[in-house]
Amino acid sequence: MYQELFSERARRIRKSAIRELLKLTERPDIISFAGGLPDPETFPRKQLAKIADEEILIHYAKSLQYGTTEGSKTVRSRFAQFITQQEGIEIDPQSELIVTTASQQGLDLIAKTFIDPGDIVICGLPTYLGAIQAFHMFQARLIGIPVLDDGWDFDVLEATLKKLLSTKPRPRIKLFYVIPDWQNPAGICWSKEKRERLVEIAEALGILIVEDIPYRQLTEGKPIPMMKAFDSDNETVIVLFTFSKILAAGLRVGYIYGPREIIKKLVIMKQSTDLCTSPLTQRLVARCITDPEFKKHLFLLRETYRIKREAMLFILQETLGGIERVSWTKPEGGLFLMVTLPENVDTEKMLERAIEYKVAYVPGQSFFVNNKGQNTLRLCWSLPTVDEIEIGIRRLAEVIKQEISISCPQAPK
Amino acid sequence: MYQELFSERARRIRKSAIRELLKLTERPDIISFAGGLPDPETFPRKQLAKIADEEILIHYAKSLQYGTTEGSKTVRSRFAQFITQQEGIEIDPQSELIVTTASQQGLDLIAKTFIDPGDIVICGLPTYLGAIQAFHMFQARLIGIPVLDDGWDFDVLEATLKKLLSTKPRPRIKLFYVIPDWQNPAGICWSKEKRERLVEIAEALGILIVEDIPYRQLTEGKPIPMMKAFDSDNETVIVLFTFSKILAAGLRVGYIYGPREIIKKLVIMKQSTDLCTSPLTQRLVARCITDPEFKKHLFLLRETYRIKREAMLFILQETLGGIERVSWTKPEGGLFLMVTLPENVDTEKMLERAIEYKVAYVPGQSFFVNNKGQNTLRLCWSLPTVDEIEIGIRRLAEVIKQEISISCPQAPK
Repeated sequence: MYQELFSERARRIRKSAIRELLKLTERPDIISFAGGLPDPETFPRKQLAKIADEEILIHYAKSLQYGTTEGSKTVRSRFAQFITQQEGIEIDPQSELIVTTASQQGLDLIAKTFIDPGDIVICGLPTYLGAIQAFHMFQARLIGIPVLDDGWDFDVLEATLKKLLSTKPRPRIKLFYVIPDWQNPAGICWSKEKRERLVEIAEALGILIVEDIPYRQLTEGKPIPMMKAFDSDNETVIVLFTFSKILAAGLRVGYIYGPREIIKKLVIMKQSTDLCTSPLTQRLVARCITDPEFKKHLFLLRETYRIKREAMLFILQETLGGIERVSWTKPEGGLFLMVTLPENVDTEKMLERAIEYKVAYVPGQSFFVNNKGQNTLRLCWSLPTVDEIEIGIRRLAEVIKQEISISCPQAPK
Repeated sequence: MYQELFSERARRIRKSAIRELLKLTERPDIISFAGGLPDPETFPRKQLAKIADEEILIHYAKSLQYGTTEGSKTVRSRFAQFITQQEGIEIDPQSELIVTTASQQGLDLIAKTFIDPGDIVICGLPTYLGAIQAFHMFQARLIGIPVLDDGWDFDVLEATLKKLLSTKPRPRIKLFYVIPDWQNPAGICWSKEKRERLVEIAEALGILIVEDIPYRQLTEGKPIPMMKAFDSDNETVIVLFTFSKILAAGLRVGYIYGPREIIKKLVIMKQSTDLCTSPLTQRLVARCITDPEFKKHLFLLRETYRIKREAMLFILQETLGGIERVSWTKPEGGLFLMVTLPENVDTEKMLERAIEYKVAYVPGQSFFVNNKGQNTLRLCWSLPTVDEIEIGIRRLAEVIKQEISISCPQAPK
């Protein structure tokens, strides 16, 4: 009955069928590789409890009070210190950084600040669903570039840009949205060459890069330089970061850093969005990550996820290795991998059977802005135990084999 | 350099000059009646620290993990219980309530969900600046109705509606935005009759009411029924609430309750905005407010603010009582009152002199969507001590008297 009162953007947005389906997978007897939930056993709860006690009892006049929209000076300084420590990049926390209510708010603010209806955002095929939703909310036109093993397919990118730039009137291409490190959902990591190249293209065309790096710290060994590292004038790349995957998702704290003029505008945009991010959770994060213990925490976290990831890859190989037209990505970090099945398999339909077999995943289609990918699925290894991973992948392999035998009967030889 | 990349809404939004000016008032030697910050000594820190400890150490798998977008079931049930306790209204927490990152996010979600460029929102003259900003962000057309001692001026409201409804093409009037209890900034409380009447008008015209009630619990004696109480079919009134003023602003927790179909849509809209409000701060609030101790806390809180308010009103009367064309509202609750000075006084200009005298307030103009109100100012009594209130109001009275003698030289008798 409120259709006439809803805004255009609200009328367009539909409840995601897939999220509804995934609610079924929360049954305790189902082993779920669906949600991207971090392992709660990795949350440094003792340390957080100790800090929370001090923050609430002693620093209550700051931690429980309204804070400034951009985040407190101390917190921003500590975040900058963390960035320098991790990346060797020096930033001015007071003008180049804004604290956000985790990365999803970062995406909302970016979309709010840059997108008018019809503006173009170029993203990966596949890409993060929450980003697709944030950009769609502001009626962006999303154009996808196929993701190869080392980043986007630059042949397709260049052809796409050429076509767009020769269109009259020239469409407004605003943003490249990328997750260069162990991308959600495909678990792909961009090569150094492609990172550098995208920055060059963006600079040349006056397009901004949104570099979303939630999984960057979940890399084995030394990570590849960020795209930001190639943005020497700090004019082209906006970095989104969240502490959800490396500290605790429930604190809802992240940051954006980037060009000063953009940060200034984002602060104004955030003001009417939520006044400020909780100073309590900001301060919990800031103190936790600059504690010397945090390095050990990060090390253990990487180990936990490495072991789970290797278990998943091992059982996948054991159960599905060698089956024709079945393949999967082999990430060396992050939380996700993507399985591709023969083209006529529909993973959304297959999910019903999977639920019967008490295993769950996310059908890939919702990650593809071109509506393809119906033969793909995303697996996340962070939440289940190693034993559950073994049992769950065996169940899934069974489901996949059955589905293939039904959907793709062998052609007579 | 990013002007061409910014969205229309981002290009229109300007940094608020007044906020810049108010930064000056944060000097420790200035007694500030400007910000609407609650008194941190009222935050129940011992209770919160105890709950935080349990939540982080024991319930970490919930409190530090991602939560559902609408808020956890337990939290929503506790919020509903609180509403029933306070208002005697029974609500279904699972379909009629969504947890928000405090009320400012409530306003952002409402604006996002209902406002297309040019849509009309009718609000008070004056009204809450954060609401003006949230609606302006989505390019609403704001129309103000003068606020009298008992609510809006209904003669003006009716004339305005008549004019709007006879305009061709008929403009889209989407929302009435009201703060019926001790309104920010004027400290006005709506009469029962006007509350009931506005609901009738809204129902008849198919307009929604956004009833924002951050100060409702800060009322002496029994509060007047909410507008929501007259919305018997739960179809017309959307209630915004925050725990910022009665528990702790830094937790950033509030809720919206209202018609089911609207709540359902708001959940979808919130998903791309921030995925979820911090489960940790949600749970801290939910447990704190349903603790038997909380009644005592509310009682002490009201007493604290009553004493400060009475001190302010007393010194205002002593120093400015009887001065021609100087008046102020006399609230019996909330955190704010509004002073009106002779028409040719400009309170924004006067603020410079006030800062010299080491006292601060908010010039009223930014609360008026018709750009009037330059001879008004808002005072907030929650943060300073009673002694500071006395000294500060005496300083302010001095400033006002001087300003009047300069701006309004006595006409010869």
